[in-house]
Amino acid sequence: MMIFHLDNTMKIPLYIQMYVEIKKQIQAGLIHANEKLPSKKNFMDHYHISQSTVQNALYLLLEEGYIYSIERRGYFVSNIENMLTKSLPYEHKLKTNLISKIKYDFAYSGVDPQSVPKTILKRITRDIYDEQNTDLLFQGDIQGYLPLRESICQYLENSRGFSVDPNQIIISSGTEYLFYIIFKIFDKKIYGLENPGYKMLRELFLSNQIEFHPIPLDESGIKIKDLEKQKIQIACITPSHQFPTGIIMPIRRRNELLHWANASEERYIVEDDYDSEFKYNGRPIPALKAIDQKDKVIYMGSFSKSISPALRVSYMVLPQNLLSLYEKKLPYFICPVSTLSQKILYNFIEKGHFIKHLNRMRTLYKQKRELIVQCFKKTNIDILGADAGLHLLLRFPYSLNEEQFLEECQNHSVRLYSIKEYYFEDFHLDTPIFLLGYASLEKQQIQKGISILLEIMNRYF
Amino acid sequence: MMIFHLDNTMKIPLYIQMYVEIKKQIQAGLIHANEKLPSKKNFMDHYHISQSTVQNALYLLLEEGYIYSIERRGYFVSNIENMLTKSLPYEHKLKTNLISKIKYDFAYSGVDPQSVPKTILKRITRDIYDEQNTDLLFQGDIQGYLPLRESICQYLENSRGFSVDPNQIIISSGTEYLFYIIFKIFDKKIYGLENPGYKMLRELFLSNQIEFHPIPLDESGIKIKDLEKQKIQIACITPSHQFPTGIIMPIRRRNELLHWANASEERYIVEDDYDSEFKYNGRPIPALKAIDQKDKVIYMGSFSKSISPALRVSYMVLPQNLLSLYEKKLPYFICPVSTLSQKILYNFIEKGHFIKHLNRMRTLYKQKRELIVQCFKKTNIDILGADAGLHLLLRFPYSLNEEQFLEECQNHSVRLYSIKEYYFEDFHLDTPIFLLGYASLEKQQIQKGISILLEIMNRYF
Repeated sequence: MMIFHLDNTMKIPLYIQMYVEIKKQIQAGLIHANEKLPSKKNFMDHYHISQSTVQNALYLLLEEGYIYSIERRGYFVSNIENMLTKSLPYEHKLKTNLISKIKYDFAYSGVDPQSVPKTILKRITRDIYDEQNTDLLFQGDIQGYLPLRESICQYLENSRGFSVDPNQIIISSGTEYLFYIIFKIFDKKIYGLENPGYKMLRELFLSNQIEFHPIPLDESGIKIKDLEKQKIQIACITPSHQFPTGIIMPIRRRNELLHWANASEERYIVEDDYDSEFKYNGRPIPALKAIDQKDKVIYMGSFSKSISPALRVSYMVLPQNLLSLYEKKLPYFICPVSTLSQKILYNFIEKGHFIKHLNRMRTLYKQKRELIVQCFKKTNIDILGADAGLHLLLRFPYSLNEEQFLEECQNHSVRLYSIKEYYFEDFHLDTPIFLLGYASLEKQQIQKGISILLEIMNRYF
Repeated sequence: MMIFHLDNTMKIPLYIQMYVEIKKQIQAGLIHANEKLPSKKNFMDHYHISQSTVQNALYLLLEEGYIYSIERRGYFVSNIENMLTKSLPYEHKLKTNLISKIKYDFAYSGVDPQSVPKTILKRITRDIYDEQNTDLLFQGDIQGYLPLRESICQYLENSRGFSVDPNQIIISSGTEYLFYIIFKIFDKKIYGLENPGYKMLRELFLSNQIEFHPIPLDESGIKIKDLEKQKIQIACITPSHQFPTGIIMPIRRRNELLHWANASEERYIVEDDYDSEFKYNGRPIPALKAIDQKDKVIYMGSFSKSISPALRVSYMVLPQNLLSLYEKKLPYFICPVSTLSQKILYNFIEKGHFIKHLNRMRTLYKQKRELIVQCFKKTNIDILGADAGLHLLLRFPYSLNEEQFLEECQNHSVRLYSIKEYYFEDFHLDTPIFLLGYASLEKQQIQKGISILLEIMNRYF
């Protein structure tokens, strides 16, 4: 039997792990060309994995030509000497990279692996199936399940400080789908994006051929003067916890920004409140939308950070004055979320589980954040970004070759992210700043990952 | 006797094999136009196959126009150079207004209210929650859950007659989301839409400012000459069961259409196979994609008709040569379907429930269709559209004031739909044609609804 390690606790599916491990052994010459692989059944028994795990792993290897099959005989290793490696499909590339050796990936994405409240969700789901109605037969409301929209309104009122009508809520999948709706509502507009900011947003705007300009930040967030200079009509911002800098926009800048928007009928603000649930000291700061008296703020929220990105549910609050445009321009754009998912979420919120879950997660993430702060306490590394969200920034006290440093970290199973990636243009920082996401790592992993990081740094200086 | 090979050990049913073999011989010119086929009994004796195998095979050939029958004489090969298909006149449509007083809404949308297999889905869902993995934490593959894409490939191979790679499958929400991807893959193209056709499609194209032209149909479906005249580059069609006319595109037109597409690198066909699961006599006709040798057909399928529209899952098969464009242009467009929904669907298909469900539904819908035919038997109303799908068309033998008639029906709790709604322009028909959808009504409702309809009609004449 081939010996490799499969890890049930990792976020990478077992079949991908298995595929990568076998591939590595083939590439390393540990199994030779034309050697027979163990049978599916052997793999299943030896590793206590399901048939579909084995099949999926073998499928990927077959597809990439690492192995071949002979009917009724089994799978054999290809002669990779003569093999032209064909370009891997996008997702495989992505996963292979992720998996190969990074055990401590301080990525921004993901949630705590122990956190998804499976038992509660399972019970809720069972009860939905048991309901004596035909809800699971119908597509539901085009803007999303009305009771869910009502629950979201209630949540926004209690936790984000503003009150809106359920008919202003549009439920969709990810942020990209919400922006697509915005692009359609407005014919031609000039958008301003935070610089640094989300990379995905930039690609989204580029590929939709939407005019936009990167707008620099100062210590309070997006700079109003540059909005004016660039003739921006729609400013897309993350005032609760700027991504990636972690700036919480102070009230003065918020007022200035609303003032900017109120000055012209054409102007709007898109507020992406992506991780506002996580503020570790004191109450959450209300959303910008909470002081938006002239209804100029389009508010976006998501359950990706607060429950799980696997849900694929986000939502948007449209100003009243845009509703008729929305109805006119997107009559066919039906909510992409299944009725089942929407009902699960509705029950989860309505029965009080969501608030309890948020409280539990806030405690857990606060501990993780404090652990990181603790780990760097005796170093001369600065921690930047407010006491909020699911990531923080490290500013190094000296300059170094970033690429080389990140590569060395990766060679030691640690991945972190340079803030340069989030800028629109090449950018010089005298001392490097790195982004560290901590939601999906366990505390021991955080500790171990950082200790490796510190060792590497010590070798640098 | 014609000589061909049938293989009992193959997964493909014998009648499909027989149908394919005969078709090949006709296409190759090995049997000439107007030549008589061996009798059913000859086929049965020679190949040791059952009567139903022979009947099903001949039925498929008949339906696609490869052969014709002469009563009491037998089956003859069509002149495929010069083939005239039986005339399938037009009509029908869909709509979704839940107005309380409409008790008998013959809308096109929806599925049978008793049909959603809640018990099975509930069990599958419970098992997914019980799995010892972290799948419900992660967003999953950008194109959709790989095992689900593999199951879909298997289904397409077994039931729709073509074999594709899982990396060609993109899972999304409704058709509108799939078209959005197509709009992004191609920069500027001129699209042709069937006239009559889906209203939603028209609105989608309009609001995305995509250039398109309505293309008229004849009795075989979309007219190639008009595609050429309008300089269409992408033809969007429903060849398995044209919406709303119910035309099944015969093989000759299918070949012409592919020939049209093959004539230029710029041309593609979008095949929407929306209700192909429901073919009531014999097996489904293979998809157009099944004879698409040059990979010019973008295939779309959906689970809205086959399971429930509440699922919000549809998918697309991209030609290999468009994959890199897709990856380049839509790197951020993540599958909108939750991991839970995708895993439910995967298990439903993989464990054989999907095929069983389809068989059960096919029987039920066939009964409903036959009931309707029965109800109109003693009237002079013609029933149009092939013996397939979830709707049919009624052609009245006289002209009447349609608006007034439909209003009177509504006042008596019955709703049906004029085919005029599905045309791009004002359209005059000497005798009205109405669309009747029957999926979501129970048999008693169908009976009662039609009896009310007939009473109203009697008052008209």
